[in-house]
Amino acid sequence: MIVTKGELTRQAILERAMDLATQIGLEGLSIGRLAEDLKLSKSGLFAHFKSKETLQLQVLETARQQFVERVVKPGLTAPRGEPRLRAFFERWLTWGRENPGGCLFVNTAIEFDDRPGSVRESLVQDQRDWLDQLANGVRAGTQEGQFAPGSDAEQFAHELYGMMLGWHHAARLLREPQADERTRVAFEALLDRYRRK
Amino acid sequence: MIVTKGELTRQAILERAMDLATQIGLEGLSIGRLAEDLKLSKSGLFAHFKSKETLQLQVLETARQQFVERVVKPGLTAPRGEPRLRAFFERWLTWGRENPGGCLFVNTAIEFDDRPGSVRESLVQDQRDWLDQLANGVRAGTQEGQFAPGSDAEQFAHELYGMMLGWHHAARLLREPQADERTRVAFEALLDRYRRK
Repeated sequence: MIVTKGELTRQAILERAMDLATQIGLEGLSIGRLAEDLKLSKSGLFAHFKSKETLQLQVLETARQQFVERVVKPGLTAPRGEPRLRAFFERWLTWGRENPGGCLFVNTAIEFDDRPGSVRESLVQDQRDWLDQLANGVRAGTQEGQFAPGSDAEQFAHELYGMMLGWHHAARLLREPQADERTRVAFEALLDRYRRK
Repeated sequence: MIVTKGELTRQAILERAMDLATQIGLEGLSIGRLAEDLKLSKSGLFAHFKSKETLQLQVLETARQQFVERVVKPGLTAPRGEPRLRAFFERWLTWGRENPGGCLFVNTAIEFDDRPGSVRESLVQDQRDWLDQLANGVRAGTQEGQFAPGSDAEQFAHELYGMMLGWHHAARLLREPQADERTRVAFEALLDRYRRK
């Protein structure tokens, strides 16, 4: 595959924009602000992205691709069911830890929960996809006999996502040294509740 | 107690500012934006609040007072231990539901986790107070023999806060009709884990 110089530049811009968005918020990410940060011409960036909304959507798309590469795909190499849920969980913690401003999806969820429009819709879709991925892990674990028959997969996914939000809050706002440990205790208790006895 | 007209006005302004902040973010809340929203003169509001930071801190203080009135105080009328934790939990859900843009503390936690300064410090203090309040409920419940001896109160508080964040995400971003129910299932399971067997 041939990647043109233009495409590389675009990708580099989007990755920088994603880092910036996790810190100042996706709504704070105007084309002007990005141009200033990257020391590029505003008109050049306008030519690339046309509008703030397009920029925001493409930043979300960039985050989605990175999330798939860094969390979903490596998780899918683990055996189905509980081992895969554990892999998703650990990869997600690493993802939250390695991004300079935390998880873009967590930040954007708060920013856009009251802002109707295409950014919110795109984000809702991403979040549902991730919750489905987690719920599928539970369904597979139930089929494999790891979890109790009739386990409520959506309930598990909902609770696990809350744990991830709790980790994000404890680690990032409170700088809680035990954030990882407490989140792991919660996760093990959740697995234990679902496990076939 | 005599409340002057000036004080009433100030309180009314702060309450409106708080509602606005839950929707557009505390960082989006400039004196200019608030003046526009309230159709007041910008110079008049500057005379009241001096700076954006003072306005932000006073909005947080207003939210804190309301949280104490609407969640903490009513919760403290319940018997100590588990009944009080249940009261806090239900009051917190109501608080999240009744505020037009959700919980200001949840929103601000995401906005300010990367912004050092007095707003962040004030928020961290509020969050620690609330986690302490929850942990104290667990300690009291342990003393009363409701929870198992040696129960980890900070762990419980951490997990319960994550559930509240999970509720906020499901109810507000995803408009999940089962947000309340799923959060209650998680809470009951947490209580059950801690209960003296």
